[in-house]
Amino acid sequence: MDRLEVIPVRGIPEIRRGDDLVRIMIKAFGESGVSLRDDDIVVVKQKVVSKAEGRLVRLAGVKPGPEAKRLAAEQQKDPRLVELMLQESRRVVRAGHGVIVTETRHGFVCANAGIDKSNVRSGYVALLPLDPDASARSIRKSMEEETGRRVAVVITDTFGRPWRKGQTDVAIGCSGIKPLLSYLGKSDRYGYHLRVTEPAVVDEIAGAAELVAGKLSAVPVTIVRGLSYERGDEGASSLVLEKKKDLFT
Amino acid sequence: MDRLEVIPVRGIPEIRRGDDLVRIMIKAFGESGVSLRDDDIVVVKQKVVSKAEGRLVRLAGVKPGPEAKRLAAEQQKDPRLVELMLQESRRVVRAGHGVIVTETRHGFVCANAGIDKSNVRSGYVALLPLDPDASARSIRKSMEEETGRRVAVVITDTFGRPWRKGQTDVAIGCSGIKPLLSYLGKSDRYGYHLRVTEPAVVDEIAGAAELVAGKLSAVPVTIVRGLSYERGDEGASSLVLEKKKDLFT
Repeated sequence: MDRLEVIPVRGIPEIRRGDDLVRIMIKAFGESGVSLRDDDIVVVKQKVVSKAEGRLVRLAGVKPGPEAKRLAAEQQKDPRLVELMLQESRRVVRAGHGVIVTETRHGFVCANAGIDKSNVRSGYVALLPLDPDASARSIRKSMEEETGRRVAVVITDTFGRPWRKGQTDVAIGCSGIKPLLSYLGKSDRYGYHLRVTEPAVVDEIAGAAELVAGKLSAVPVTIVRGLSYERGDEGASSLVLEKKKDLFT
Repeated sequence: MDRLEVIPVRGIPEIRRGDDLVRIMIKAFGESGVSLRDDDIVVVKQKVVSKAEGRLVRLAGVKPGPEAKRLAAEQQKDPRLVELMLQESRRVVRAGHGVIVTETRHGFVCANAGIDKSNVRSGYVALLPLDPDASARSIRKSMEEETGRRVAVVITDTFGRPWRKGQTDVAIGCSGIKPLLSYLGKSDRYGYHLRVTEPAVVDEIAGAAELVAGKLSAVPVTIVRGLSYERGDEGASSLVLEKKKDLFT
């Protein structure tokens, strides 16, 4: 493999419920001077997918229940926001220092059930897509039909990490690419059998895309080009660690 | 900013204790057809830094103490390896399912204190550099002197994640680049003040480099080019979360 390129796609307009995200992206490729190629990986921020799928909620319309009120008071958060977090989650994993970490309906462990207020209009919050792998699959299929190119799609969100400051973007949905590149059973150049090495390539792709997309510059779509990856359709949900192997909750 | 490039540097030979890593890298740049440019980020895998710094240990020479023997039996690991983990760590954070997670001398929380057997000669293991930020600083300064280019250096290792399968490369040392890009106090295009967003850019750079470097192909050095980053010398140790904010150990 030669070099990898990470290409920001400019000119994606404000996305509204029901918008055809694939047609909008293809138009923006043209305007950005990007010709899609076979094996390009199209990386899409969760926020635009959530908007297209109508996953914005007006906070003023949310009635917090007693559990949300209690937790919100304890962590000094908006009880309506906490109500939504609880609705979007299987359980609260930890709460402290003003941070609420939950396990989302998808099995992801992250702050605020992935709900956030940034880059949405005032008074609203964006929930994660209901099934980000299905969203990725649908985007990939439409894009392949529209362009005639074979591509992969990764949908990303910004997650914190338990013992490191700051956040990185990770994959919450993907299609057309195996999330893990398995070296299990292969040997290094010293003949040592790699037993535990499975790079989470979709998460590394998400992070690489974030580097060029940033948070302020309204570049929610990025192309990662030049990576030799394995095709597959396991989805990012296959990255969720089995409960019995979880050492931390 | 335009596109980001991630360029694998080929032709790095086997590194031995005392080798001048900077001269070896500069030679490999030439052979790979890479001319270093101002603001390039040179990403170096921990393993070659550890080798150059003489951080390989012969397992046969390690005498496990009682705590190592107990923990090794419990987790079905080599007691000599566990002895080294304990020596390299401040504390054991979790042990279970054959996994030992410790807090290293640097404050990193990771499996096996970052010690591993892959890509080292049989019978040996590689420990993390004693001070990866100092290693990064030393490499950066020598490289800037030798080449006349202003660069940043990131030293990476492969860490697991508590609730997600697989691993990603993260920064364990850096110099010439701010590890966190802070948006605190800035506003998005809706006027919303971003309160918690601080992308851990050095970790995203580490992951991007891993995508082209891989584990088997012996590409321990990568150039990340085209990123507009903030210069700084806080080091990757500044990413370690303060104990009082830790919700998980």
